[in-house]
Amino acid sequence: MRLNTEQIEALDNRYRALFINALSGFKSANLIATCDDRKNTNLGIFSSVFHIGSKPPLLGMISRPHNVARHTLENILQTEHYTINHINESIIEQSHQTSARYDEEISEFHATGLNEQWDDDFPAPFVEQSRIQLGMKLREHHQLAINNTVMIIGEITHINIKDDIVHQDGYIDIERAGSIAISSLDSYHRTDLLSQLSYAKPEKMPEQITDRKK
Amino acid sequence: MRLNTEQIEALDNRYRALFINALSGFKSANLIATCDDRKNTNLGIFSSVFHIGSKPPLLGMISRPHNVARHTLENILQTEHYTINHINESIIEQSHQTSARYDEEISEFHATGLNEQWDDDFPAPFVEQSRIQLGMKLREHHQLAINNTVMIIGEITHINIKDDIVHQDGYIDIERAGSIAISSLDSYHRTDLLSQLSYAKPEKMPEQITDRKK
Repeated sequence: MRLNTEQIEALDNRYRALFINALSGFKSANLIATCDDRKNTNLGIFSSVFHIGSKPPLLGMISRPHNVARHTLENILQTEHYTINHINESIIEQSHQTSARYDEEISEFHATGLNEQWDDDFPAPFVEQSRIQLGMKLREHHQLAINNTVMIIGEITHINIKDDIVHQDGYIDIERAGSIAISSLDSYHRTDLLSQLSYAKPEKMPEQITDRKK
Repeated sequence: MRLNTEQIEALDNRYRALFINALSGFKSANLIATCDDRKNTNLGIFSSVFHIGSKPPLLGMISRPHNVARHTLENILQTEHYTINHINESIIEQSHQTSARYDEEISEFHATGLNEQWDDDFPAPFVEQSRIQLGMKLREHHQLAINNTVMIIGEITHINIKDDIVHQDGYIDIERAGSIAISSLDSYHRTDLLSQLSYAKPEKMPEQITDRKK
């Protein structure tokens, strides 16, 4: 199948949404948890969280202003804090369900059976069932002129993870934590490690890393 | 393990790079192919390609100005075109090797054994061994003040994929195409489909999609 701009534009809207959403490759699967100034909570699934840098530790995500993410965006702008929680195999259905268009006064936590976890030192809730939890501070947001989506950039200020998935060199085994990947709009995948490769240098091909210790 | 900002800042640089790079979740695995005005080619692995919107069809990616991606970035700004090519299981090592710091006059195509594919109607090369190939037109680029990385936004203007992975409703089976996922800086994973879930509505939990036809 070969498509050019005119043929892409001619696709039916629902077809195109499934189709184009698959083209970036596998996507991260995260729950974004927020609250407003009165601690009313909100929870939404996002497949657009991406790495921006490690020093300082920054993650980006894309939000549409007027879709299911609207309460998430409003809360982040209001409180400047949010949490990112990896979705694992055991909470796929509840996580997917957070994308339903609940009324503003309904928290997706209560509607889906995912539990709020409040830590003393962080002003937004974490998802108790998640094994990799990140506390985020809003750093920048930009509305993209090209399609009105909003890019949110946050700094990781709190990290909660199980010790047994962190290796001595800093590698985190997110596969062992049960973290999953998303394709297109509705498909959830587990992973199997194929290879871990040494730092690439021009003079030789990479080698398998075999001595990574926990 | 619980870490706060001060503890994250105190991490050794190499440890932190592996560690923070795992926290966004699974990442897409793509080769970005470019050329300069004289058709000298360049090829680099990127794990930061993300979906921005389907109408118009837009993908974003993050580039650091002064790392292995520098030629890629320069070429994109010069020609305003590039290609995104999914990495599959059979080209993981060659793809990883494109991250080595080759001199500017050396094309990573030639150095790694990945083949240039030139289509008549597109000004940048595709990767012949890739089964999902996208031709991109540069739309916006922004240097992020927070860490000097560059966000590149492109529109998908050409799509080359095998017919047998596209379903009737527009879903593309990128798992069947052999596309892989990346975790952290050096780990490559295949996937297994766990579930495909129906469009979420407030009044009921999602159901498995069982009637998706090729």
